[in-house]
Amino acid sequence: MNDTIALLKSHRSIRKFTDKNVSDEQVAEIVCCAQAAATSSNVQATTVIRVRDKDRRKQLAACAGGQPYVAEAPVLLMFCADLARPAEACQTGGGQFHPGMTEHFMIATIDVALAAQNAVVAAESLGMGICYIGGIRNNPQEVADLLALPDQVYPVFGLCLGFPAQDPEVKPRLPLKAVLHEEKYDCQRTTDGISAYDPIVREYYKTRTGGGKDSSWSQEMSGLLGKESRPHMRDFLRRRGFEMK
Amino acid sequence: MNDTIALLKSHRSIRKFTDKNVSDEQVAEIVCCAQAAATSSNVQATTVIRVRDKDRRKQLAACAGGQPYVAEAPVLLMFCADLARPAEACQTGGGQFHPGMTEHFMIATIDVALAAQNAVVAAESLGMGICYIGGIRNNPQEVADLLALPDQVYPVFGLCLGFPAQDPEVKPRLPLKAVLHEEKYDCQRTTDGISAYDPIVREYYKTRTGGGKDSSWSQEMSGLLGKESRPHMRDFLRRRGFEMK
Repeated sequence: MNDTIALLKSHRSIRKFTDKNVSDEQVAEIVCCAQAAATSSNVQATTVIRVRDKDRRKQLAACAGGQPYVAEAPVLLMFCADLARPAEACQTGGGQFHPGMTEHFMIATIDVALAAQNAVVAAESLGMGICYIGGIRNNPQEVADLLALPDQVYPVFGLCLGFPAQDPEVKPRLPLKAVLHEEKYDCQRTTDGISAYDPIVREYYKTRTGGGKDSSWSQEMSGLLGKESRPHMRDFLRRRGFEMK
Repeated sequence: MNDTIALLKSHRSIRKFTDKNVSDEQVAEIVCCAQAAATSSNVQATTVIRVRDKDRRKQLAACAGGQPYVAEAPVLLMFCADLARPAEACQTGGGQFHPGMTEHFMIATIDVALAAQNAVVAAESLGMGICYIGGIRNNPQEVADLLALPDQVYPVFGLCLGFPAQDPEVKPRLPLKAVLHEEKYDCQRTTDGISAYDPIVREYYKTRTGGGKDSSWSQEMSGLLGKESRPHMRDFLRRRGFEMK
């Protein structure tokens, strides 16, 4: 195992940060690494907005359901899927942008995720910890307003960065066999994987909470997927120009 | 700049591979790194299908528009967004899965992209080269059939892996200032960024093709976004259970 692989395998979310400053040069380096990720047909649909203003940070934290580290982390980067830029380039190049395609929405969203993960690896290689903030999608219209996002741009997630003031355990994952299939999808691996993983998750939560939390992966997924999730998302995206045609 | 950051910045797609074998242990290590990426609420919606069968590889290459490296690369990993597994866990945990939410589609797609990018970084740290194959979405239903994907699973992209038999240039990206905004989205940075980047892309293509290709980023984006893109995608996803409610 080389150092980079060891780094990747040591990831866990960090939600408490020291006061140690993250320099502008470090942020620039991290975002350059984000840019270096693969991008579909070089569309480069990622725009990162760094938010420093204390009031705006507090409002974003509220949008995300009150996660205090959104307001307090040394750096908050808002990752946005941006079709406005390639669309403007398309017009500059003499074309007529076709808005609202599902495929374009997917390309932009995937571009952002690939870029963000590179940013995460870069930050962690510098000794920082990170936390993705998908919670901003609780109130995406308010977030879009706070960031003055134009049409064809939507906020995918935030990313908190800083030097860790905590050292949580790495969370155990599903058995490899459940995730890496051979030749074709194998439904039996799913069923077996859930059976094998449920007690591992239960033990992880017990240890982590001193016995306070007693829950399997199935119970967690039941709580998560056994209800509607962000039912506003479809209309929000439509209003931003992502029609899903 | 540390070694990991240097690695991230040196990425370029590799489409020609040597005969050097990629071991099963290396593939396992790469997929373990994929699993180590952040995942929304631990939903772990990524399933990777390794395809070795020559005929199936050829059929997948045809689905992707005839990219020969899909058939010939030492390793082909098909990255699938998998809500079938957490949905089964949800039922096991006593819940009733709510299919078809846009937000769940997004979570699964983003999960896959984060995981895949970790796989890419791991592979590159081992001296390999990679190429994402978004082209499989040209014929996603055929791909889903070839991989026997169940409902609630869709193929996001393929990933070719192997040791490089070519050494292409790193493709220049948009100026950092166009991508990293401060406090709010700044439309002027988009316009300025396009102006600055167009001649850089033109020069890159000229150099790379010995003058054979003369095209700016705007011209490339005009060709890409000035038409419909994969208009079958919406109905395909609906058939797989992704209703986008």
